[in-house]
Amino acid sequence: MASTNPARGMRDFLPADVRKREYVIGIIKSVYESYGFEPLETPAVENIETLMGKYGDEGNQLIFRIMKRGEKLDELLKPNSDNPQSAIRNPQSLADLALRYDLTVPLARVVANHKNDLPKFFKRYQIQPVWRADRPARGRFREFYQCDVDAIGSSSMVVEAEILSAVSEVMTELGFDNFSILLNHREILRGALEVCEIDESCQAEALVALDKLDKIGKDGVSAELKSRGFAGKSIDRIIKFIDDTVKVSGGFDSSGNSQVDRIKRFESLNNATLRRVSDFIGDNVSGLKGLAEISEILSFVSTTSTAVPIDFFPTLARGLSYYTGAIMELGIPHPSGDNKYDISLGGGGRYDGLIGMFGKEQIPACGFSLGLERILVVMEERGMFPPEIVAPTAADVMITIWNDDSIPASLKLAAELRSSGLRVTVYPEADKLGKQIKYADSINVPYVCIVGDDEAKQGMVKLKNMKTSEESTFVASEIAVKIRL
Amino acid sequence: MASTNPARGMRDFLPADVRKREYVIGIIKSVYESYGFEPLETPAVENIETLMGKYGDEGNQLIFRIMKRGEKLDELLKPNSDNPQSAIRNPQSLADLALRYDLTVPLARVVANHKNDLPKFFKRYQIQPVWRADRPARGRFREFYQCDVDAIGSSSMVVEAEILSAVSEVMTELGFDNFSILLNHREILRGALEVCEIDESCQAEALVALDKLDKIGKDGVSAELKSRGFAGKSIDRIIKFIDDTVKVSGGFDSSGNSQVDRIKRFESLNNATLRRVSDFIGDNVSGLKGLAEISEILSFVSTTSTAVPIDFFPTLARGLSYYTGAIMELGIPHPSGDNKYDISLGGGGRYDGLIGMFGKEQIPACGFSLGLERILVVMEERGMFPPEIVAPTAADVMITIWNDDSIPASLKLAAELRSSGLRVTVYPEADKLGKQIKYADSINVPYVCIVGDDEAKQGMVKLKNMKTSEESTFVASEIAVKIRL
Repeated sequence: MASTNPARGMRDFLPADVRKREYVIGIIKSVYESYGFEPLETPAVENIETLMGKYGDEGNQLIFRIMKRGEKLDELLKPNSDNPQSAIRNPQSLADLALRYDLTVPLARVVANHKNDLPKFFKRYQIQPVWRADRPARGRFREFYQCDVDAIGSSSMVVEAEILSAVSEVMTELGFDNFSILLNHREILRGALEVCEIDESCQAEALVALDKLDKIGKDGVSAELKSRGFAGKSIDRIIKFIDDTVKVSGGFDSSGNSQVDRIKRFESLNNATLRRVSDFIGDNVSGLKGLAEISEILSFVSTTSTAVPIDFFPTLARGLSYYTGAIMELGIPHPSGDNKYDISLGGGGRYDGLIGMFGKEQIPACGFSLGLERILVVMEERGMFPPEIVAPTAADVMITIWNDDSIPASLKLAAELRSSGLRVTVYPEADKLGKQIKYADSINVPYVCIVGDDEAKQGMVKLKNMKTSEESTFVASEIAVKIRL
Repeated sequence: MASTNPARGMRDFLPADVRKREYVIGIIKSVYESYGFEPLETPAVENIETLMGKYGDEGNQLIFRIMKRGEKLDELLKPNSDNPQSAIRNPQSLADLALRYDLTVPLARVVANHKNDLPKFFKRYQIQPVWRADRPARGRFREFYQCDVDAIGSSSMVVEAEILSAVSEVMTELGFDNFSILLNHREILRGALEVCEIDESCQAEALVALDKLDKIGKDGVSAELKSRGFAGKSIDRIIKFIDDTVKVSGGFDSSGNSQVDRIKRFESLNNATLRRVSDFIGDNVSGLKGLAEISEILSFVSTTSTAVPIDFFPTLARGLSYYTGAIMELGIPHPSGDNKYDISLGGGGRYDGLIGMFGKEQIPACGFSLGLERILVVMEERGMFPPEIVAPTAADVMITIWNDDSIPASLKLAAELRSSGLRVTVYPEADKLGKQIKYADSINVPYVCIVGDDEAKQGMVKLKNMKTSEESTFVASEIAVKIRL
């Protein structure tokens, strides 16, 4: 007998799970729609060449490959040909399709494929699962949802401002009352590293070390840079950059202020940080460009009435190599409690060089990706779901079945109550009343209707309130109103 | 440069497509919820042994297999071991996972896996994609959605009645005003074939021929039975069964009657058909059981106020072999116009032996599956989508950008309009007004706001109605109200 577990790293979602997921997805969709983003969906399965080489070596390893089928496979594995050896030398040749690994590469493919059907500025959101053959761990799954929002076609910082505002509104609508969005710019990092006399070819390596600041501290970064062979002078300057800027950057504010107070505090800290970075950067062209764009974003965001808590964070490096401009990470207080951020809920930025990978022309783009599973975990831990989501009801009312002869009366009542807009479930068979009530309790319905012989004769229905156990008898036509009260 | 097309048989859904799909899915969900069905989701990827052997030989061929990864694959393909030969002899051994092929097998697995967490009667719906390596054709895709509704745990015909009623309500809500649900019973077919003196072991083969009645006619069925070696006497009796029953069964009613009239006509035809079948069946035990259940279903359904047009169709065989009781197919008028049914939109039935395949005990079950893609094709052909779905708007209003200095004013207005519940998109950069208006037209927004220098000074906003080209100037705080009118 086959195992009844889902495949490793995959999960079944029972009704209570689905309702929580749909609640969060519903809020994300509704906010993104209110910003004029439109829904896109792409297939779970892509041609393997669409995905290969887009995610680096490590990414390539984590792509789920789908085997060729029928004649194509037979041909490759023909026992008497030379092919098997080549198939064995190159097992990749046995696969022609692969599972979607993220939502950005499919977006780039769609933009190239439909460039004449899409509006000049294509603002889309996409909420779909992706699959990665990662080692499963707590909170890390092989099938998980990404909630992406991207605006294609404009280099204006209006795009960044709108995306930051939208993500911020999602978080507020979900009930997060203490979060911020860490903001930095690739050109600021480039400028700072140039000032540190680090050659362009070594900058990626320096960023890998800088990216660990949060985890290994300043001394750790210094040691790692040393072990990677950077010059002492460069390392000293990087440490100065950290000292100059991290001291003033915000970090999580545990003082219990309101989000509005926090935003004010961020604004003042951001201004101080901008000055420090400006001093450090001097007249470096890259750095100045980055600073100008960050200033513009901060200014745009501050004029709207929407509260967008932005923490300008000059050491934020962000892993993915394809970002070209602003980079963003969503930060909530780290459970460790020591003013660190937990930045696992989502991130994004500008990637002006990526969308063009399937087309002839480069097209500017900026986006943000929220991780549904991480958001769900945090909301679960903090008890952030509203009561009707925590304890979902299978229906507004259950109708019992008194005996075989009364089935038509019960079904008739069910149809009537449904036509007045109620969700109605019917106990499927004649059974002891106690067992029917017990079942109603197990599926958490608030009301039960009983149409016994006496009630049926008089055209009445007994209504049981499952919470109070109170029972009252009403004319059938009144039941819907009583349940709504 | 890689191709920008989706993989063969797969499709991208641009915003207008997604909105149509979500419209249909929304109605299906809402109706199923109103009957007390709850949502279930299972992973796209299953262990391969969960799927193999569940769909017959043809099904096995159509399953997308996912290759083993890392060490497991390396081990199998080690060049210097004997393994490659065995891998070549059995390429299936290279795969350990597979893509979901339908929603019923995962349901059975979940029921077995969670039997202690699920209510005694588990009523679930599930709307998710499935993947089949079929040859793509018009309207046949390799990724498509199934919309399944199933009730697990009861043998009562109340279940059939509720499912028929729910499916019927979905169709009505979608706007189908001429459909019926063909209903038959496996035990009636078994009984009829026993009366025709066809042995149990040959019945499946006889049903394959009978299932083609619609396509090849009575003479075709007779010829096919002959070529399959059935005795002349048996064939004569099967033809008599067809003659006795098909003449009175309903078929598509092209007379232009209302659905209510059609239901009345079906009721009278169904009663006549029940008598004919009863005469044919005589005292055959299987046949009598089937007849009794069909009578019960028809009686339950007729008592509710919901219009459920059921066409009792004694020759309906339905392909899948796992049905044990009632079988159902959704019929709409065939485009050929000759009173035939198009039964490609969905089907279902009772399968009391299937859910137990992963567990120790058999659990009764009945369900129905709607094909999203077929429904969409028919609705598209018939122009059944409401106007807001046919011509979706990216937003309720677009805000232009007069010049770089006015960006904050435009963003402020956007935030205000959003907070009053409007969907607002902002043109992302300063540009010629004509180009901004042209873009607004391309994304189909009904209104455009212009905050020019003059308007900005006076705290006013110019509102352009894109349909009438009318322009009026209002105080900013009035704009939301004007757009809603």
